[in-house]
Amino acid sequence: MRSTTRGETFPVSTPAASQIFTTVLSHGPLTRLEAARRAGLSPAAVTKAVRPLLAAGYLAEDADDGGRPALGRPANLVRVDGGRALFIGVKVTGDAVIAVLTDLCCRIRLARRLPVTDRAVRAVLTSIAELTHGLRVEAEDFGAPVLGLGIAVSGDVDRAEGVARYSPFLDWRGVPLAELASLTTGLPVVVENDVRALTVAEQWFGAGVGLSDFAVVTVGAGIGCGLVVHGRLVAGAHGVAGEIGHVAVDPAGPLCHCGNRGCVEAIAGDAAIVARVRQVTGRQVAGPAEAAALAHAGVAGAREAYARAGEAIGRGIATVANLFGPERVIISGEGLAAHDLFAGHIRDAFTAAAFGSAARCDVQTRPLPFEEWARGAAATAIHSFITPTPQG
Amino acid sequence: MRSTTRGETFPVSTPAASQIFTTVLSHGPLTRLEAARRAGLSPAAVTKAVRPLLAAGYLAEDADDGGRPALGRPANLVRVDGGRALFIGVKVTGDAVIAVLTDLCCRIRLARRLPVTDRAVRAVLTSIAELTHGLRVEAEDFGAPVLGLGIAVSGDVDRAEGVARYSPFLDWRGVPLAELASLTTGLPVVVENDVRALTVAEQWFGAGVGLSDFAVVTVGAGIGCGLVVHGRLVAGAHGVAGEIGHVAVDPAGPLCHCGNRGCVEAIAGDAAIVARVRQVTGRQVAGPAEAAALAHAGVAGAREAYARAGEAIGRGIATVANLFGPERVIISGEGLAAHDLFAGHIRDAFTAAAFGSAARCDVQTRPLPFEEWARGAAATAIHSFITPTPQG
Repeated sequence: MRSTTRGETFPVSTPAASQIFTTVLSHGPLTRLEAARRAGLSPAAVTKAVRPLLAAGYLAEDADDGGRPALGRPANLVRVDGGRALFIGVKVTGDAVIAVLTDLCCRIRLARRLPVTDRAVRAVLTSIAELTHGLRVEAEDFGAPVLGLGIAVSGDVDRAEGVARYSPFLDWRGVPLAELASLTTGLPVVVENDVRALTVAEQWFGAGVGLSDFAVVTVGAGIGCGLVVHGRLVAGAHGVAGEIGHVAVDPAGPLCHCGNRGCVEAIAGDAAIVARVRQVTGRQVAGPAEAAALAHAGVAGAREAYARAGEAIGRGIATVANLFGPERVIISGEGLAAHDLFAGHIRDAFTAAAFGSAARCDVQTRPLPFEEWARGAAATAIHSFITPTPQG
Repeated sequence: MRSTTRGETFPVSTPAASQIFTTVLSHGPLTRLEAARRAGLSPAAVTKAVRPLLAAGYLAEDADDGGRPALGRPANLVRVDGGRALFIGVKVTGDAVIAVLTDLCCRIRLARRLPVTDRAVRAVLTSIAELTHGLRVEAEDFGAPVLGLGIAVSGDVDRAEGVARYSPFLDWRGVPLAELASLTTGLPVVVENDVRALTVAEQWFGAGVGLSDFAVVTVGAGIGCGLVVHGRLVAGAHGVAGEIGHVAVDPAGPLCHCGNRGCVEAIAGDAAIVARVRQVTGRQVAGPAEAAALAHAGVAGAREAYARAGEAIGRGIATVANLFGPERVIISGEGLAAHDLFAGHIRDAFTAAAFGSAARCDVQTRPLPFEEWARGAAATAIHSFITPTPQG
C-alpha cells in the first residue's frame, strides 16, 4: 500500500499522462511536438493528456516569444508549474534522518535533519513525523498543499506493499513503514529502496537525463546499485535488483553478512574497510574517517585496504557493464569522501574486467549529499502521485 | 546494414504495427481487444495497425464460432497467416552450419546442415549460400516468397551494422557478414549474436512467453546469456550485453582468452572442462564427450571438473539474478549433454549466492537443439522485416 490517506489526486490516470508529465518535468519547458517526440506518443495523445493537467494547474503553458523574430505561429511551451504542489522526501540512514521539502518540479525548497540515536522503528518514525510536521508548518508560507511523502531506506524494500522487508543497517525486518508513517503524518506515503530513489532523481534531473540505460552505484556503509534499462528503473520480479554489493568477486574473500564470501560489500563497505585496516595495521580504528585519515597519512596497510575496496568495486561495475552494457555508470555515496584513495583502483579494475566494447561505458563520479537522496524519495512520491498504478 | 537487397516490404512502418504483429505471432489467435490489452495499445490503434496487415495478407481474421453458443456478436480472432511468407535462419558453430526454413509464424518447415571443415569466412559463406539455395529450391513447393535470412554467430556481433566484430570460436574479426551474405544469396540479411537470437525465439515461442523479465543462459563451447528486461531484449549501449561468460567469479581462477582470470567461461566452457580433466587426471582427453564419459565412469578428477564448472555457472546465474531479478532463468546449450554432472552444483551455488528473494527466481533447464537456435535467427529476420528501424 502506498497510501492510506489521500486528499488531492492527479486528474488523469493513464500511462500517457504520467509519461508526458515526467517528460516535461525532466526536459521541459517543451513544445507539445517536442514532448510528443521525446515521449514516443502522437501529438493527439499529448493534447489529450495535457488538457486536464493544464486545467488542474499541474502544467502551465507559456507563449515562446523569447525575443526571437516571429517565424510563423509561435509554439507555446509546456512546463510543470512547480508552485502548484509540494512533496516531502526523507532519507533514513543509521545516523540521521534527512528530510527535504520540494515543489512539484522536485526542486528542494527546504532541508532539515535530525540525528538518529535510537534505530528502533518507533524512534525513527517519531523523527520522520517531527521533520514532516516542521516542514509542513514552514511550507504554509509557500501557499501550496503538501501532497505526499516519500521515504528512502536501504536494503530490501517492497515498494508495492510499502514494507521495509530487511534493512541491515537499521536492523529492521518486515516493517510496514508506509502504513505506519501515513498514520503518524496523515500523508500518502511511498517507501522505496534508497538507491533506487536516488536513481530516479538522477534519471529525472541528474546525470541520467536522456539516457535509456545507465546505472548508479553507491559506495559507503553499503554498496548499492540502481539500474535503468530501456528507460525504466529495474525493480526485479521478486523485489530484488541492483544488488551489486552481493556480487561475489572472490570465493576466498571475507565473510559477508549475507552468508557468502567475497561479496563486493564484504570487501568495500565501510565496515569491511575499517575491519581490514584494523587487521593489517593492528590499530584500534574507530570508523571510516579514521581509516581514511590513516590511508591519507600514508600508512601502507590502510592504503592497501582502500586499494582492495576499489578493485572489488571496479570488478562489480565491470560485471554490471558486461551484463547490461549501460551507457553510463554514476558512482556516488558517502564513501566518495575517500574517493582519491580508490578511484584509480576502481578505474583499473573496471578497465581490466570489462569485456570488449563494454569498456566504452562512461564511468563517472558524482558527489551527491544525502539531501539529494531525500530528493529522490520526494521524486518517488511525485512519481507515485502521477502514476495510475504502483510500479518500479 | 541489415539488408542490401529488398523485395517485398512490410506495409506499415510504425512501432504499433510491429508490436501488434509480434503480440499476435506470440499469443495468437487473439481478439482485437485481447491483442490491444496485451500490447498495451488502444483498440483504435490496433484497428489502424491491423487493417493494412490484413490487406497485405500477413494477418488473417477468422470468425470465432468454435462450437460455442453465440453470446452476442462473435469476436473475430486475428492470427498471423504463416503461409504468407518464408524466412531462413542459420546458426553457425565451429563444427557445422545449421539452417532452417520457417514460415511467417516461425514454424520450422525444413532443416538442413553442413559440416564446417574450414572456418575461414569464405568457406562458411559458401556453406550458408549452398544451404540457402537448397532451401529456396525446396521452398518453391510452398508457394510463398522467402523474404529474409537471419544468421546467428557467437561472440560480439553488431546487429545494426551487420558485422561480426569478434567471434572467438570462428576466429573472425570485423567480418561484414550481412553485406557478404546478402551479396551471395540475394536476400535481405540480418546478423545477430546467437544467444540473443535464441532468446528472441524463447521470448516469442518458448519458456519466455508472457514474461517481462527473464534470461537464457547457454552452456557449451562458450557460456552465453540473453536478457529480456521490461519485455525487450537487452542489446547494450555499445553492443555488449549478457556476457555472463566473462563475469569473473574467482580472481585466482584459470586465465581466460579475454585476458582476465576466473571468468565463468574459463572454468565452465567446454575447453576449460577438458583442460581441467586433462590436468587433474593426467589423461589425454580428446574433447567434451570424452571428459563427460570419464566423469560418468566415476573418475574423481573428471567429476570434480564438472562440479567446479557447475559452481561457476551457478554463481554467474546468481549474479544475473541479484542484479536484475528475472522471473525465470532458462539454462540450455549443447553443454546440457553433461547436465546430470553439474545440475546439482549449479543449483546449490545459485541458491547460496542469490541474495534474499532473488533466490525465488525459477531456474529451469531446456534442451534446445541447434535447429532451435537457427529458428531464433529466422525470428530475428522476421523481427527485422516487421520493424521500422533496427533495434535490439
